[in-house]
Amino acid sequence: MGTGDGNLPHIVIVGGGFGGLAAARSLRHLNVRITLVDRKNHHLFQPLLYQVATAMLMPGQIAAPIRQVLKNDRHTTVLLGEVSGVDAAAHTLTVETPEREPLHLHYDFLVLATGVQHSYFGHDEFEQYAPGMKTMADATKVRNKVLSAFEAAEHETDPALRSALLTFVLVGGGPTGVEMAGAIAELARMSMKSDFRRIDPQDTKILLVEASPRVLGGFDPSLSEKVTQRLTHMGVQVLTGHPVEQIDDSGVTVGGEHIASRTVIWTAGVTPSPVARWLGCPADRAGRVKVRYDLSVPGAPEIFVIGDVANYEQEGKPLPGVAQVAMQMGAHVARVMEARLMNDAPPPPFHYVNKGNMAVVGRNYAILERGNLKLTGYVAWLAWSLIHVLFLALPNLRVSVFLQWVWSYFTEQRGSRLIVEPEISSSPAETVRSAS
Amino acid sequence: MGTGDGNLPHIVIVGGGFGGLAAARSLRHLNVRITLVDRKNHHLFQPLLYQVATAMLMPGQIAAPIRQVLKNDRHTTVLLGEVSGVDAAAHTLTVETPEREPLHLHYDFLVLATGVQHSYFGHDEFEQYAPGMKTMADATKVRNKVLSAFEAAEHETDPALRSALLTFVLVGGGPTGVEMAGAIAELARMSMKSDFRRIDPQDTKILLVEASPRVLGGFDPSLSEKVTQRLTHMGVQVLTGHPVEQIDDSGVTVGGEHIASRTVIWTAGVTPSPVARWLGCPADRAGRVKVRYDLSVPGAPEIFVIGDVANYEQEGKPLPGVAQVAMQMGAHVARVMEARLMNDAPPPPFHYVNKGNMAVVGRNYAILERGNLKLTGYVAWLAWSLIHVLFLALPNLRVSVFLQWVWSYFTEQRGSRLIVEPEISSSPAETVRSAS
Repeated sequence: MGTGDGNLPHIVIVGGGFGGLAAARSLRHLNVRITLVDRKNHHLFQPLLYQVATAMLMPGQIAAPIRQVLKNDRHTTVLLGEVSGVDAAAHTLTVETPEREPLHLHYDFLVLATGVQHSYFGHDEFEQYAPGMKTMADATKVRNKVLSAFEAAEHETDPALRSALLTFVLVGGGPTGVEMAGAIAELARMSMKSDFRRIDPQDTKILLVEASPRVLGGFDPSLSEKVTQRLTHMGVQVLTGHPVEQIDDSGVTVGGEHIASRTVIWTAGVTPSPVARWLGCPADRAGRVKVRYDLSVPGAPEIFVIGDVANYEQEGKPLPGVAQVAMQMGAHVARVMEARLMNDAPPPPFHYVNKGNMAVVGRNYAILERGNLKLTGYVAWLAWSLIHVLFLALPNLRVSVFLQWVWSYFTEQRGSRLIVEPEISSSPAETVRSAS
Repeated sequence: MGTGDGNLPHIVIVGGGFGGLAAARSLRHLNVRITLVDRKNHHLFQPLLYQVATAMLMPGQIAAPIRQVLKNDRHTTVLLGEVSGVDAAAHTLTVETPEREPLHLHYDFLVLATGVQHSYFGHDEFEQYAPGMKTMADATKVRNKVLSAFEAAEHETDPALRSALLTFVLVGGGPTGVEMAGAIAELARMSMKSDFRRIDPQDTKILLVEASPRVLGGFDPSLSEKVTQRLTHMGVQVLTGHPVEQIDDSGVTVGGEHIASRTVIWTAGVTPSPVARWLGCPADRAGRVKVRYDLSVPGAPEIFVIGDVANYEQEGKPLPGVAQVAMQMGAHVARVMEARLMNDAPPPPFHYVNKGNMAVVGRNYAILERGNLKLTGYVAWLAWSLIHVLFLALPNLRVSVFLQWVWSYFTEQRGSRLIVEPEISSSPAETVRSAS
């Protein structure tokens, strides 16, 4: 790999998410070769994925081509491919690419930042009825499903079926579930209120189901309570303390009660990518790799595991799988590698500094928690909006999302109500090619 | 259908393209019930589809939800479904909808504006290697294919294969083929010039193949000549007078010569939707319905066929399948129906007024032909840009596309280089869900 500087140390980073990109960017001033491997060509701004799923933003607005983000880092090569294994003894990893023999890359340092995917906790049969929300393809599928349900309800004459089509169930009361619930409520009650003739989108029922006693378990209980009030006020029914027992094509069963719904969305759980298996190293119960003080793998000091796949304990418990943790870990491993390459003293053990957590519930309302500071309502929502715009990876995406939000705020319309693949097809009803 | 005004005349329009939408909009002041049926939920602005396929625009920027376009037309119901047949004697049509029994709609007037799909002239086996360009799903597929070819070339070590990956063949020298060729040239030579480390996107070969003696056969020969010069100047090889003989996974054969290419795109031909078959009425050789002076079907005066599916002769030859013709036909049938409902004198026979044809070749260059006026270059390009922005169906899309173009013009970057479904998959390399 690389362009004629084959003698430089080679750092391979797997994963172009928040952790991997932070590592790559923090290494750019060093005289090394870097290869960043991802199976997608884009860095996905996952905190706003729910806005794609609810037709507020277009997919391209929250996806930055990794090549474009790193285009000025002349020592960094981007490789579209999927890691299938690591040979820690030989310092090589295997990358599968389309239409080609697998590549074997030799590394001097390896950073694994491969993240998580949604998990059904042993109920994989739920997946066909309740798609998850981790990738752009997931979000587009959910958007198609949500918009198609309203379309089908419009010409459904059976009242029971129509009601099932207008019932949306979100399984999982974490930030994604809460944000989705608020966004679907707005989509139905605001953006689409004049668009149908036979149904009233205001009749939409939205349920948020959480197995634990409260939503947003990562926040202070007082904030969970306020979010529940806000959701209830927006017409979302919040059901806590009951796990989902069954999901099928007729709906969900919660606490012994069956709820008829044609649109169930799964935001309840994730499972790490198989890093521990690649490395043959110990993992925690969730499958994350227990990393050392410098985020390296026990017994393989040249391999680092960061982000959602890492289990790093601080104050007696593992750090949460959020963007902030991944970004700080990425920057930290860059410092560790630099110190080793320069024969400098190693940096102090990794210490996560929580700059605050946020969640948004529809327009004008968010919660923000930072240390003892707790903010709710409009000011928190402004802060949420500003921070999320600023953290997009490319300047054009910042402008584009900002303008979209301002426009939507005043018009109450969405940005992208596009059903790309309706389930019907075979002959064209789409018209006209044009020379004009 | 409708909301309690079941005694009003019922007009069914099939197809939400340029023709169908023009008809619906021209009828909005009448006291009738209108049902617009489309198998997609969006009106696609097809003249800019090539920009989605070449990563300039995002799909949502050229797609307007039909419901949103017609939201203030309270007498108009939008139905997502696909027509499978018409019973002209009984004045009913059958609409297939997902997950439901087919609907049977009774109509007083029926407007069929169902357009065309791409056609391989009996070589359906070409489709798997050379996707067409009619729907949003087509354009997204082409975009994935084009972007993935550069990705694969970046880590291909075999020079012959790498060259095939960097060779793009456009079959068909009509406006879409010409515009695609120019756009791929710019994507490679401008937007991506700094993004790769092992290939030089400037090495990209682009071929435009046209069976007839010149490209843009609908324009004056002097303009075809200028476009060919411009394309050649941009590094596009224009090959006219030779039909494509063979397309397979290794490339295309033209004039007995094999050209190795991994990305072949088909813009060479279209075939009408099966309107003539639904109606059991005579069609021309291409499959279009020969319509009467008022665009009605011979023997069924309450059925109109408009747009690309209609064959209407003017000055001895059928009108071309372009947006302008469809829009003028849509407005005309609205006048015909209004006159009949009001018992007024019918309007004069349909007469198409050609307001001019345009085609664009990359930035700063377009051609424009209107009567004897022929314009080429920058001024034509400005006119092209202005007209295409103004004709988008929703104001927010106009602003969004305008800003995208201005931004891209100055930065030389594209708007949406997103590969949504790379051909590899199974475990996640995408990172991080976040509460922040």
